[in-house]
Amino acid sequence: MNTEEELNALGYPVLKPKTPVPSDIEVSQSIVRDVGLLPITEVGKQLGLNDDEIIPWGIAKAKIPLTARTNRLDVEDGNYVVVTGINPTPLGEGKSTTTIGLAQALSAVRGKKTVACIRQPSQGPTFGIKGGAAGGGYAQVVPMEEFNLHLTGDIHAVTAANNLLAAAIETRLFHEASQSDEALFKRLTSKPFSAVQKRRLRKLGIDETKPPEEFTPDEKRRFARLDMDPSTITWQRVLDTCDRHLRTVEVGLGAQETVKSGSERVQHSRRTGFDITVASEVMAVLALSTDLHDMREKLGAMVVAYNKQGEPVTADDLGCGGAMTVLMKDAIMPTLMQTVERSPVFVHAGPFANIAVGNSSIIADAIALKVVGPDGFCVTEAGFGADIGMEKFFNIKCRASGLKPKCAVIVATVRALKMHGGGPPVAAGQPLSIEYQQENVELVEKGTSNLIRHIENAKKYGVNVVVAVNQFKTDTLAEIEAIRTNALQAGAFAAVVSNHWAEGGKGAAALAEAVEQACADSQTENFRLLYESSKSIQEKIEIICKEMYRADGVDYSPTAQAQIEQYEKSGFGHLPICIAKTQYSFSCDASAKGAPTGFRVPVREVRSCVGAGFLYPICGDIMTIPGLSTRPGFMDVDISESGEVIGLF
Amino acid sequence: MNTEEELNALGYPVLKPKTPVPSDIEVSQSIVRDVGLLPITEVGKQLGLNDDEIIPWGIAKAKIPLTARTNRLDVEDGNYVVVTGINPTPLGEGKSTTTIGLAQALSAVRGKKTVACIRQPSQGPTFGIKGGAAGGGYAQVVPMEEFNLHLTGDIHAVTAANNLLAAAIETRLFHEASQSDEALFKRLTSKPFSAVQKRRLRKLGIDETKPPEEFTPDEKRRFARLDMDPSTITWQRVLDTCDRHLRTVEVGLGAQETVKSGSERVQHSRRTGFDITVASEVMAVLALSTDLHDMREKLGAMVVAYNKQGEPVTADDLGCGGAMTVLMKDAIMPTLMQTVERSPVFVHAGPFANIAVGNSSIIADAIALKVVGPDGFCVTEAGFGADIGMEKFFNIKCRASGLKPKCAVIVATVRALKMHGGGPPVAAGQPLSIEYQQENVELVEKGTSNLIRHIENAKKYGVNVVVAVNQFKTDTLAEIEAIRTNALQAGAFAAVVSNHWAEGGKGAAALAEAVEQACADSQTENFRLLYESSKSIQEKIEIICKEMYRADGVDYSPTAQAQIEQYEKSGFGHLPICIAKTQYSFSCDASAKGAPTGFRVPVREVRSCVGAGFLYPICGDIMTIPGLSTRPGFMDVDISESGEVIGLF
Repeated sequence: MNTEEELNALGYPVLKPKTPVPSDIEVSQSIVRDVGLLPITEVGKQLGLNDDEIIPWGIAKAKIPLTARTNRLDVEDGNYVVVTGINPTPLGEGKSTTTIGLAQALSAVRGKKTVACIRQPSQGPTFGIKGGAAGGGYAQVVPMEEFNLHLTGDIHAVTAANNLLAAAIETRLFHEASQSDEALFKRLTSKPFSAVQKRRLRKLGIDETKPPEEFTPDEKRRFARLDMDPSTITWQRVLDTCDRHLRTVEVGLGAQETVKSGSERVQHSRRTGFDITVASEVMAVLALSTDLHDMREKLGAMVVAYNKQGEPVTADDLGCGGAMTVLMKDAIMPTLMQTVERSPVFVHAGPFANIAVGNSSIIADAIALKVVGPDGFCVTEAGFGADIGMEKFFNIKCRASGLKPKCAVIVATVRALKMHGGGPPVAAGQPLSIEYQQENVELVEKGTSNLIRHIENAKKYGVNVVVAVNQFKTDTLAEIEAIRTNALQAGAFAAVVSNHWAEGGKGAAALAEAVEQACADSQTENFRLLYESSKSIQEKIEIICKEMYRADGVDYSPTAQAQIEQYEKSGFGHLPICIAKTQYSFSCDASAKGAPTGFRVPVREVRSCVGAGFLYPICGDIMTIPGLSTRPGFMDVDISESGEVIGLF
Repeated sequence: MNTEEELNALGYPVLKPKTPVPSDIEVSQSIVRDVGLLPITEVGKQLGLNDDEIIPWGIAKAKIPLTARTNRLDVEDGNYVVVTGINPTPLGEGKSTTTIGLAQALSAVRGKKTVACIRQPSQGPTFGIKGGAAGGGYAQVVPMEEFNLHLTGDIHAVTAANNLLAAAIETRLFHEASQSDEALFKRLTSKPFSAVQKRRLRKLGIDETKPPEEFTPDEKRRFARLDMDPSTITWQRVLDTCDRHLRTVEVGLGAQETVKSGSERVQHSRRTGFDITVASEVMAVLALSTDLHDMREKLGAMVVAYNKQGEPVTADDLGCGGAMTVLMKDAIMPTLMQTVERSPVFVHAGPFANIAVGNSSIIADAIALKVVGPDGFCVTEAGFGADIGMEKFFNIKCRASGLKPKCAVIVATVRALKMHGGGPPVAAGQPLSIEYQQENVELVEKGTSNLIRHIENAKKYGVNVVVAVNQFKTDTLAEIEAIRTNALQAGAFAAVVSNHWAEGGKGAAALAEAVEQACADSQTENFRLLYESSKSIQEKIEIICKEMYRADGVDYSPTAQAQIEQYEKSGFGHLPICIAKTQYSFSCDASAKGAPTGFRVPVREVRSCVGAGFLYPICGDIMTIPGLSTRPGFMDVDISESGEVIGLF
């Protein structure tokens, strides 16, 4: 552990937290104004990056090219730590804040090379109810307004790529409805076969070197007519805006969007919908790609519909995989920012946690692990509760990356455990009941059932578990001790209190020490996944539901069964499973708190992200584009006389 | 004029053009690979910008903060040159290429401090048919793929701001349809009045310091209920994608988008549409703002609908002006890039030329004029033909900025003048008729009528006119001489041939010299506008139609008349006029070539951009979101084995 002087010399400022802790934007702006940001190129250099491995993107942000990893292939990976949590209250239990606080403690307090890897938040909810996702208090990424809005444009690139494909689908339907095979083929071959067209020829088993004029009518038809069954189209348009009226729309109602049908013209319209951008499969691809070429293959392989013969139609069949990759070529680079204590943070990808992996990118973690080296730490966050976020982190993200974590930090709060112990409901915008403001050890004791099950679950993967009690000022010693005792009994390597929100890295020093010890004690070869991907789709779903949620079994709707059959038939049966369910309970019933048993998991349908590489069973109501309240957050956001952002939160 | 050695010392490379000229992307990539980009911070420094006036944004781009202008308020402006053109063929006559080529000649050949100011292109058509807009050949901005895709995210910011307002409108309609005045008011005042809410109180004449509980029922209703008449909503959603099926859509068809009506629930749906992002009024605001606070006022003042009493409802009434400004706070800074000869280029704003000003931003020009200083040049481009682009440049953009141009460069080609002289139609993707490949002085002579009228028009503004004949290899000496003679007779200060596309700045040296002389000969105090904004709307429309197009008169539809009355009544009568008509003719009939007379201008409707600050009469069919062809450009775009972009054009 370095002295304060040594840390200062390393460029870490001494944080002087205010009491009470101001709003997040006030903390962020005061750090920028009073302490000053380290030039972002300096943040990168202190981490050991070379000049050509730091691409400035504005004053406070930089893109880190993938060469930062490939230049260090002979370096041993650092310690890989995932931060996850118990099933939260709707107020959140501070996973992002703990991720940032832990990274601040490891770097600015304990002098370890550390990178925190977190997701980029969707801009939509930022203007709605949610607020930002930069952490909070004295454990946050700064400037928070830069973090929360636009960042380096990655989400906008996802929007552009997603919607290019949507336009391609709609237009292809339109052109196929209004043109003969011959006319379609002639237009599609008006220029030499492009790279993506050659991919389609290879897929169809047609010699790609054959001149178009030598194609047989059957070959022309097979090449030119995708023959999508409109009822099977799953690709939606996206916007990074909370616009609930776009959930279901009818498109193609214009006077020019008509096609000839017999002797008359009929409207070429279709019912479809918009999702919020982070729910796009393109975002999931960004999170799960390992490099540019891998991303190219994944984007091209995305299945958007089935043809009338039941065969999958991909983005590459529509000629879009290459152009989408080009649109995503900057987005593939993680964004470097810094915390209030100048610790480096990689912000990269933000796939929707309820239908996708809810984890930041493989690329960011992989770069971070090489850059920090064997004595360093990559602290990465898994969204939602550990039953979803951590499970997906291990079984989808680590499976795809081959990276091996050593330690899982499970964040718990006295408040949430009281709720799990039977306390009254907690809701955003409502005053907290008295149970949450006064000592109640019994509720906490009862509620630890939730934490205990998450600890047991995490240990199945062969990692050490550290419980972080994210401290609130109303917590009492007896309440915290109840959590610690139960956690250690359940097999946690350590259980410590952390007060990074109010104190910054210093407040998380004990947590950082515990994580260091947990990593030193752990062997990466002990890491194991929960299931083999070669098992059947139903087996995999059942293993997760029984081993992680402790369900008695799984019930499939006829739709889900038919979809599973379709996927097995189409060759997608090997994909890992990404269950979409509530984050508020182990079960599919958000009100079932603690450690519920005796329930079954109903699978309503099973959707696919074939490009990103997972199937996602839908076990509950899934909302893929939020709305705005009568008094949304945007009404408070403005610029001040001096041009500063105000009212963000 | 500097020697080659001196220019080399200044960092200008010696261009070695290939013959034949490779494709634009090949030229761009070969420059980056073989010559190398100047680090963008160096480009800025050579221009005289200080370190804190250059914000790197990736390797090849930087944002220029508005302080670059305010730090130099005591510096005399440079020479302000606008590049415009005759009525073009659908292939374009090379305005952007001439703008870039002229700037290369002024800076890299003649050693003058020069900034070219051009528009950011929409990404949609880049993947459709149009190709890029970075210039072309050896007169282009590099890297062209960076220029054409994403740039620094400004268009994405416009999309975000535009769609936040769209969601706010739709949600407000929904909430007003389902809540009482009291409930609405209670929710809107659940937090203290925000800055934008206080604006609304001031507009309504309600004391903003009065506590909400003291509001009278009438005040509550007036504050909380915007009472928009859905049939008057003009605000559309936008995407930067060519997706024609979004031209007309029905939104709000989801199961949850219903409101109670009597004893049943009815669908809260509405027919509306999407435009391409560059057609958004937010983009026009970006182009016409003078600083951040001006942008804040303009965004807030945008009229999106009228209430049932016929009063305008603004973005600020919806509480959106502040949040939109915050979303646009980086977009307000011009992007610095460089040409193949390392001349500095400001890329900023790209309002749709057919319904908006079609000019790059005031801010970019204003910064450039201060940075280059009195001996330098700001070469800015006006979209479409001079009858539209130049007229709007003078009467809307210069009126708003107060900046005074000295010289208008009118770009002409032998090809387009032959078409104006009666040559056969020219169309994209079709082989050119023989008339355009062989000498035909007679057609050129006849066609100069079009050029002559543009010269006469430009001279009405008190600027010197330089005609640039953008040379093609099929042009003959006699054809070019015919243009020159006629242009000089019509009062052009000079008429010169330019071959920047094939030769870079060297090819435009004569043009640069002519422009320098034209500026030296010109007095800014001679500059005058065509009309006083205080005239009536109809008078202003008629002045433009008669003086610029030489129409006999204007015919208004009843709709247009009613709209004009509404605008006069709402206090918008003082706004300048931005006529939306075809760029292919002086008249509203695209096929009327040369210098048509004896026609009238039919005004079908008059729309408003109250925030941006103009009214736009619609005189023809206006398409605000293009479609995709059967073989769109995106099918050729991909990444190569080495990760380079291929197939962009």
